[in-house]
Amino acid sequence: MKKYVYSFGGGKADGNESMKNLLGGKGANLAEMAGHKDLKLPVPPGFTLTTEVCTYYFKNKGKYPSGLINEVENALKKVEKLMKRKFGDPENPLLVSVRSGARKSMPGMMDTILNVGLTEKTIPGLINQSGGNERFVYDAYRRLIMMYADVVMEKAEGIEPEKEDMAIRKQLEKIMDGIKKEKGYSSDTDLKAEDLKILADKFKEKIKEVLGKEFPDKPEDQLWGSIGAVFNSWNGKRAVSYRRIENIPDEWGTACNVQTMVFGNMGNDSATGVAFTRNPGNGENDFYGEYLINAQGEDVVAGIRTPAPINQYSQSEHNKDLSTLQQIMPDVYNQLVDIRNRLEKHYKDMQDIEFTIEKGSLFMLQCRTGKRNGVAAVKMAVDMVEEVLIKKEDAVIRVSSSQLNELLHPEIDPKTEIHLKPIAKGLPAGPGAATGQIVFTAEQAVESVKQGKQVILVREETSPEDVEGMRAASAILTARGGMTSHAALVARGWGKCCIVGCGALSIDIDKKEVYIDGKILKEGDWLTLNGTKGNVYEGKLPMMNASESNLLLNEYLKICGAIKKLGVRTNADTPEDAYKAKQFGAEGIGLFRTEHMFYGKGSDEPLFILRQMIISSTPEERKKAIDKLFPYVKKDIKETIAAMDGFPVVIRLLDPPLHEFVPKEEEKLVQLAKELNITMEELKERAESIHESNPMMGHRGVRLGITYPEVTEMQVRAIFESSAELLKEGKKPYPEIMIPVVCDVKELLNQKEIVDRVYKETLQKYDLKEIKYMYGTMIEIPRAAFVADQLATVSEFFSYGTNDMTQMGFGFSRDDIGAFLPDYIEKGILKNDPFQTIDIIGVGEIIKLGIEKGRKTRKNLEVGICGEHGGDSDSVKFCNKVGMNYVSCSPYRVPIAIHAAAQAIVEEKQQINIKPKKVRKIRK
Amino acid sequence: MKKYVYSFGGGKADGNESMKNLLGGKGANLAEMAGHKDLKLPVPPGFTLTTEVCTYYFKNKGKYPSGLINEVENALKKVEKLMKRKFGDPENPLLVSVRSGARKSMPGMMDTILNVGLTEKTIPGLINQSGGNERFVYDAYRRLIMMYADVVMEKAEGIEPEKEDMAIRKQLEKIMDGIKKEKGYSSDTDLKAEDLKILADKFKEKIKEVLGKEFPDKPEDQLWGSIGAVFNSWNGKRAVSYRRIENIPDEWGTACNVQTMVFGNMGNDSATGVAFTRNPGNGENDFYGEYLINAQGEDVVAGIRTPAPINQYSQSEHNKDLSTLQQIMPDVYNQLVDIRNRLEKHYKDMQDIEFTIEKGSLFMLQCRTGKRNGVAAVKMAVDMVEEVLIKKEDAVIRVSSSQLNELLHPEIDPKTEIHLKPIAKGLPAGPGAATGQIVFTAEQAVESVKQGKQVILVREETSPEDVEGMRAASAILTARGGMTSHAALVARGWGKCCIVGCGALSIDIDKKEVYIDGKILKEGDWLTLNGTKGNVYEGKLPMMNASESNLLLNEYLKICGAIKKLGVRTNADTPEDAYKAKQFGAEGIGLFRTEHMFYGKGSDEPLFILRQMIISSTPEERKKAIDKLFPYVKKDIKETIAAMDGFPVVIRLLDPPLHEFVPKEEEKLVQLAKELNITMEELKERAESIHESNPMMGHRGVRLGITYPEVTEMQVRAIFESSAELLKEGKKPYPEIMIPVVCDVKELLNQKEIVDRVYKETLQKYDLKEIKYMYGTMIEIPRAAFVADQLATVSEFFSYGTNDMTQMGFGFSRDDIGAFLPDYIEKGILKNDPFQTIDIIGVGEIIKLGIEKGRKTRKNLEVGICGEHGGDSDSVKFCNKVGMNYVSCSPYRVPIAIHAAAQAIVEEKQQINIKPKKVRKIRK
Repeated sequence: MKKYVYSFGGGKADGNESMKNLLGGKGANLAEMAGHKDLKLPVPPGFTLTTEVCTYYFKNKGKYPSGLINEVENALKKVEKLMKRKFGDPENPLLVSVRSGARKSMPGMMDTILNVGLTEKTIPGLINQSGGNERFVYDAYRRLIMMYADVVMEKAEGIEPEKEDMAIRKQLEKIMDGIKKEKGYSSDTDLKAEDLKILADKFKEKIKEVLGKEFPDKPEDQLWGSIGAVFNSWNGKRAVSYRRIENIPDEWGTACNVQTMVFGNMGNDSATGVAFTRNPGNGENDFYGEYLINAQGEDVVAGIRTPAPINQYSQSEHNKDLSTLQQIMPDVYNQLVDIRNRLEKHYKDMQDIEFTIEKGSLFMLQCRTGKRNGVAAVKMAVDMVEEVLIKKEDAVIRVSSSQLNELLHPEIDPKTEIHLKPIAKGLPAGPGAATGQIVFTAEQAVESVKQGKQVILVREETSPEDVEGMRAASAILTARGGMTSHAALVARGWGKCCIVGCGALSIDIDKKEVYIDGKILKEGDWLTLNGTKGNVYEGKLPMMNASESNLLLNEYLKICGAIKKLGVRTNADTPEDAYKAKQFGAEGIGLFRTEHMFYGKGSDEPLFILRQMIISSTPEERKKAIDKLFPYVKKDIKETIAAMDGFPVVIRLLDPPLHEFVPKEEEKLVQLAKELNITMEELKERAESIHESNPMMGHRGVRLGITYPEVTEMQVRAIFESSAELLKEGKKPYPEIMIPVVCDVKELLNQKEIVDRVYKETLQKYDLKEIKYMYGTMIEIPRAAFVADQLATVSEFFSYGTNDMTQMGFGFSRDDIGAFLPDYIEKGILKNDPFQTIDIIGVGEIIKLGIEKGRKTRKNLEVGICGEHGGDSDSVKFCNKVGMNYVSCSPYRVPIAIHAAAQAIVEEKQQINIKPKKVRKIRK
Repeated sequence: MKKYVYSFGGGKADGNESMKNLLGGKGANLAEMAGHKDLKLPVPPGFTLTTEVCTYYFKNKGKYPSGLINEVENALKKVEKLMKRKFGDPENPLLVSVRSGARKSMPGMMDTILNVGLTEKTIPGLINQSGGNERFVYDAYRRLIMMYADVVMEKAEGIEPEKEDMAIRKQLEKIMDGIKKEKGYSSDTDLKAEDLKILADKFKEKIKEVLGKEFPDKPEDQLWGSIGAVFNSWNGKRAVSYRRIENIPDEWGTACNVQTMVFGNMGNDSATGVAFTRNPGNGENDFYGEYLINAQGEDVVAGIRTPAPINQYSQSEHNKDLSTLQQIMPDVYNQLVDIRNRLEKHYKDMQDIEFTIEKGSLFMLQCRTGKRNGVAAVKMAVDMVEEVLIKKEDAVIRVSSSQLNELLHPEIDPKTEIHLKPIAKGLPAGPGAATGQIVFTAEQAVESVKQGKQVILVREETSPEDVEGMRAASAILTARGGMTSHAALVARGWGKCCIVGCGALSIDIDKKEVYIDGKILKEGDWLTLNGTKGNVYEGKLPMMNASESNLLLNEYLKICGAIKKLGVRTNADTPEDAYKAKQFGAEGIGLFRTEHMFYGKGSDEPLFILRQMIISSTPEERKKAIDKLFPYVKKDIKETIAAMDGFPVVIRLLDPPLHEFVPKEEEKLVQLAKELNITMEELKERAESIHESNPMMGHRGVRLGITYPEVTEMQVRAIFESSAELLKEGKKPYPEIMIPVVCDVKELLNQKEIVDRVYKETLQKYDLKEIKYMYGTMIEIPRAAFVADQLATVSEFFSYGTNDMTQMGFGFSRDDIGAFLPDYIEKGILKNDPFQTIDIIGVGEIIKLGIEKGRKTRKNLEVGICGEHGGDSDSVKFCNKVGMNYVSCSPYRVPIAIHAAAQAIVEEKQQINIKPKKVRKIRK
């Protein structure tokens, strides 16, 4: 026969931690604490009705499985025996709590009833147990009545009051307020035993009047009413909608835990508290917790009294004058420390525990894996590996991607932020926080920073011309653009705080004002941004710096590095970026964007020449500009390859549509016209002629290389000549030449002719026999994946440009999604922003197709990814799964990628282990 | 032993027509004419060295297969026997021609040597044969020497003269010119026998001097020299590059035909001519040809003498005074008519024949399927089916798509066009030709046409605001844009002549001038466009109208309709378009674009309201505009569904990005601001806020429907209410509601809620039980194909939007490809404009994937295509192959689609028939 009720307590338990599906999280942990041979903790005895009771109950329209009543009665008898009390006994009554507990925690979504078993008859017994504390008992009684009326008699019966203030709970509260007013009391605690007695009577009258039923005075009725209410709360409105959001299946059901009541408010020898087995704020290996003398759990939550520290490690500014538990109850404290040590050893992770001390006796009420911040998570993981408590694989899984991210960026002090309302919200484009004074132009940003100010650049949107100002500013805030808009890409590349697409901003650049939420902010006013959340705050908020020393991070990354198989490279456009990424553990550059060298370099010269090249109308004009540009390009490439000495450097040839480089300011246009010796009219005409309707799908990438082979040649020559010079200097250059925006193998063949020729010329010029390099392509156009087998005949490597692939795959212009993507996420049409996390079923399939086809032609094809997704944890795992060789991301995402790559290995291994065994076929 | 030489002549032949791969096209046809039992035509006897000789020759560095010399000798003996002449015989010599002949015709790319066998010794014999015509013989001799020196002694030996005028041919021509000058002759024909004798000697001296070798005087040397030269010419520069272009494999090789010389220039009883078995200009079943008395083939080509008509049917303005062959040689003519009849019966197609009459004897030199224009092709196909000469399947294959196209559009008189050079070239966006006076604005176009003028609208590019002017103009010419730019799409939809992306234009709209090719053209100047070729001509050229009566076309389409299986629908936005397409045989509307109703309708009212709707900033403003718009939308939809009574009408909900509808002219903006009661500043701000960087991938299609559900609702209501009213009127409406730009099934589910609700409301309002309709999606975003299995759970039909799919698949913005696509085509990177013909290996694979996935979920899923490709012949065949249910195209492409759909069936059947038989496995 199926077992529906699992007992625990007295050093024994029918269940254990592994039975979460059947007993729920709470029930399984109670059983584990109570019954495991290494623990046998003082858990108040009780029993758990399984989730199967719940599913049966709903399948059978509120009927319980046969035999359940018997099982509950037997379990209750066990508890009575252990507690030496009897349920409903007037002399020595047993009281119980009845709580829900699903597989997955659904905090506050389901119901609880305490003090079940307290009746007119058992009240004297409880007074006796409490040493004559009448007030305590009548307070417990009125609480039971309120809770029961609300949860069991109203909600569980499906009664919906017409108005909110007609709910039974509200009506009872009104009565209580009336008495308080009458007596001139300010707080509930002022109510005396007499008052509470009267209150209980009035409550019962009201209940009869409103709900037409008596409040039950039989303990059994209370128990079964509570059990039914707990099961019914699984299908309560809040619980159902929570499950929708969290994707929890309806058919799981909840368990129901019936447990002996213990009271921390039975006097000064009683207390209640919460503790963490290690410090959840910094990860140090110290027992950390708070407690309140003569109090219940809800008093700790209510925050009326300041909890005291359990020991010296738990002291803070607020509570340093209060006595520690260690000081006032040294025996109980030592007992708790012993429990803490056993719990850590047993669970091999930091635990969050709840305890109650009833008249000097310690009881454990809850135990679960504790939440922690990023630094703490990493610190604990590293320490526990050192303590040989966990394996490296565990350490990899133990830290989440967002926790690791916290180590990389400053944050607003959470104690301050929690109390504030943002004045606007945007897309969290660059993580971390920053505070600064508003400026509206890139020039002003540079200027202000020179004057020693800290500024936030506020723009409609940014363009490459703003780059110097963006570099100078502490953070960037834009009214438009998506997660991969110019501002977002640039900021993320630098690890800079940035919020984009903040639609609430209305900028008047002439008046130097921005209107947000009805407020007018002027240049120089302070703003604080939380770029991790996308929150904009008014004023200057206190910041918490990310741990300056990266020692901890590096130690953790070493652990991850030992596990991962996927290579991690960086997207870097300058030698500085390259060095930074190398420190984090990058194994090469996966994307060097030639065009990025033209911006934010102090000197305008190369950008100016580039513009000359672009605006040229004859091959001669163009050649002139290209020749002037060559030394700049070569210098930058050489320095970057040198910085990555011995590691590969993927250099992407000129990619963006030309018109992106045409200056917008009159002044620069005049200068350009002058240099080219043409009229402004002519210049504007030429600029107009390269304007495009949809530049993302226009004349860019290899298409430029095909129409202007001389531009390809210049870049290729810079690559080979700098490599040749580095070879002569004894370095180990390893460039990979990457052709962007390719859709057909003939494009690759066309450009390869130039590469082959320049390669030969360079060998001759430098008298070399060989320069090691690879020739390959970006895969960012859907068609490229379909013809990948052909591409791989020429291409020695593929690098997925997932930004563009997502643009083309979805038909989403990343600069324009602000108009509809928020609606898409809100209405649940898309789960994630596909520019953040690879869309596995669509774009992911395109990627897989390309890899399969490519490797069919070229078995050892090197495959990587260089889009923004290379720094997204879920996307990195996808890349690992589909067999890429490496991911590449901006320097500040390298740790995230290394970590995700390691997690991918561990998770894949776990999945293999939990693969269901083959089911034996049944013969007919 | 392998047979290398195939004889023909004397009513016999070793080969036949089916052996083109071995004997080449010419050799196979000569064999067929000479040897087939139904023909046995008077073909001058000869023999063919197979293509295998050629491939052997190249594989073995110029060596022939053993036994070849013997085979040639034997074949030659046969010819000698038949001709009763002997090769090299002084008394009665046999002369031969030596010609190339590959599998596929490579006109003029390889070499020919005539009069081989003429030597010092055989000259008297030939004089004797010719009845003492010394001049004829010496002229033949000097021709042989010139040809032989050029082709055999110089080119085939691989000698490359330093300068062009040092080539032996040029040097010999110089000598001849010298003699003519000396004697005061103006023409070659003035040269007398004596002169030619001297010339021959001088030629030989020069050859010795320049090439260091004697001109061979032995017939065998001449023959083998010529054979080797013919084979070598397979690898000549011209032939090789021609093969590259035409994709002819190098390993095919050429055959070599050695054939008895016959002479049409032996006197007035000799002649030469060409003829077609039917009139190639109009297809009438009349024998049609021209001939020249006492002349050789090359004289006809040279065009010095006007050829005479062979009969009354061949008379024209130019030759009507000349005697017909029928008149002057009635016996030979009758013999020719008899041959003509037998050839048609045998080949079952119109033949192009060459004949020579030598001293009253008729010889057939060539016979091949004759080229014809569009009208003729269709006429012949229809006639031959009626004559039971061919089957319907043959008639379908016999006409090419471009020939059929000729019937649909006017053309420039080809006799004029052939002599003119275009002043500019652009993309052939709208087929047919037109002539008119230049105007630069849509308003001016409308104005001028009202004044009775014929105009061509010349624009940088067009926008929806130009539509009325475009409709008024005879043709449209734009400087920018690709084959699917706005101008191209609109023009093609109307069957209007249009050239786009004509980069050579530089328009000064203020001065009302356009600069082309250094010329300045003003408003009112005449231009003529050939929209089929993309050519722009200056001035007013004479036009040929497409046959006004469509009787022939309709008869032909009936034949095609009986064969095809694929449905053909039309893209129509007005009832007029719908009627036109229905006349052509369209079986429904595959694409009705709601937004198109707003343009070119005479009244600005609906467009104005639409703009109000777009620029609304609150739901209330928007609701107001939508309510005003509703009656217009409903009226248009109702009329169109009514026009297609009984046939399905696919109605696409609003598709384009909103900003496309924002007016550009100040005047209209002012009016709009007034109506909305907002300032111009506010209006411009709102307009700016919907501007997008890449509108093609922006806020459009279903994305609009999701952010503005009220817009979807209005359109859906218009569809259901008009259908309901038509049902009440006894009509059979069958709307298919199509959601555009879909990338995820949740988009479809979101919109379906609106459709379901409005459907129920409409049934109630009109008291109906059912309105038949379908709900489906466009597949135009790559991701949609990947999730097609999910889409098909909701979508009852798929319609491929191949324009957008090509844009996203390639990452090609169709408005911007002008900057690089011409380069791509020219450099051979792409074979076709993928917006013209579906790119089978890329976009085609995406389409296939979508169909497979879709039908996996919904077996009877209706699949069609509504992009521009639906009117492209190759693309229609692709659609047939991948199992679509229908194609849809603009009304003027409907005949093309019907034809292509029929061809697809016949071609697929043929391919099944020619499938190679399974090769028997050889046991080890």
